[in-house]
Amino acid sequence: MTETIEGHIYKAFDLELKELKEKLRFQGKLVENAIQNAIKALLDRRSEIAEKVIEDDDIINLKEVEIDEFCLKLLALRQPAARDLRFITTAIKINYDLERIGDMAVNICERVLELNQEPQLKPYIDLPMMTDITQNMVKEGLDAFLNEDVELALKVTRDDTKVDQFLDQIFRELLTYMLQDPRTITRATRVLFIAKYLERMADHAVNTAELVLFMMEGKIIRHLKPVPET
Amino acid sequence: MTETIEGHIYKAFDLELKELKEKLRFQGKLVENAIQNAIKALLDRRSEIAEKVIEDDDIINLKEVEIDEFCLKLLALRQPAARDLRFITTAIKINYDLERIGDMAVNICERVLELNQEPQLKPYIDLPMMTDITQNMVKEGLDAFLNEDVELALKVTRDDTKVDQFLDQIFRELLTYMLQDPRTITRATRVLFIAKYLERMADHAVNTAELVLFMMEGKIIRHLKPVPET
Repeated sequence: MTETIEGHIYKAFDLELKELKEKLRFQGKLVENAIQNAIKALLDRRSEIAEKVIEDDDIINLKEVEIDEFCLKLLALRQPAARDLRFITTAIKINYDLERIGDMAVNICERVLELNQEPQLKPYIDLPMMTDITQNMVKEGLDAFLNEDVELALKVTRDDTKVDQFLDQIFRELLTYMLQDPRTITRATRVLFIAKYLERMADHAVNTAELVLFMMEGKIIRHLKPVPET
Repeated sequence: MTETIEGHIYKAFDLELKELKEKLRFQGKLVENAIQNAIKALLDRRSEIAEKVIEDDDIINLKEVEIDEFCLKLLALRQPAARDLRFITTAIKINYDLERIGDMAVNICERVLELNQEPQLKPYIDLPMMTDITQNMVKEGLDAFLNEDVELALKVTRDDTKVDQFLDQIFRELLTYMLQDPRTITRATRVLFIAKYLERMADHAVNTAELVLFMMEGKIIRHLKPVPET
């Protein structure tokens, strides 16, 4: 780094913040793909897709470390002021959330590998719909952060109700199977756990949205503070 | 801040890091109490304890913000170098984990309030043991961070197997109740969700332990790096 003129430093920092956003956007795509493919492996009964998701989780883990280190570098070298500091520390937490959502896609795949070795319990109707909403919440939670979009963040927090309702519905349906035929218990439990992992992913998306609201709120509060009289 | 001599700044920063640790330790105690009281409310069928945990979660939420702001202040004012920077950013993530464990204690209490309105399904034997292990994992995960204790962090990651086994055992037992008598389904589901929340808390403790291992590993790698020849 040889920038000595203040303007140059600011410009370089702006580019770095842009790079941080790009890295997070890319990580978001990887995680979204993991969710989608995990459920595809279940619906199409294709274990090789599940195995690929499990294998590719290493990439998500490496990316998490890379983004984390990038944030540390920005903090250390740029010593950002209030607003950017809050943006970067929020990025650290959202990065942490994304990686965990990736872990849950792996958890789903582990159940899928088990389920694919036995006859299919039932046709899946609610699960793909629950997946679509969850995946969209993950996407929109991250978008709300990248675009500092309060309205979108609020939408994500509202969508969580739908995911909870799906979990409830799926659980009740699976119970009828278990009650009618105890031989379905193991399989039904695995499907239930998949729904529960989706619900946890949605929780992480809500956390991301809440972080955005807090970040923006902090800013609004700061903006509203009267200029001190000197 | 009027310290101008370098030594003074370092000393002030050391005290601030100590203060950060104290704040986290205190938050850890609040979260531990929330876990313990949530299960106490179930075992003793005392809804007022559950209500108190739900009410007191506001304190944990406020403390989370306070610790977060304190970390931001340290980052902004002290511009810490590699090791301390990593410590503070790890603290931000662990703080985030602790607050979520508090949220799960609230989730347990919501189920407890419902369960306390109906006759008790069964005597709880595994659940208190599962709670003890989980609570201890949360404590030891945080202690591993505060004391930079790799061995303790490794122990936490190992203990997770026990929690998973308890969840499995509790689930299987609850299924037998549900199969024998469908009228128990609602209650059994609530108890199962409580066990699942405990398992999620343990997951957060494992995450904390992994953050410690990563933080320490980074340090060890740095230590092993040969001194550059000049």
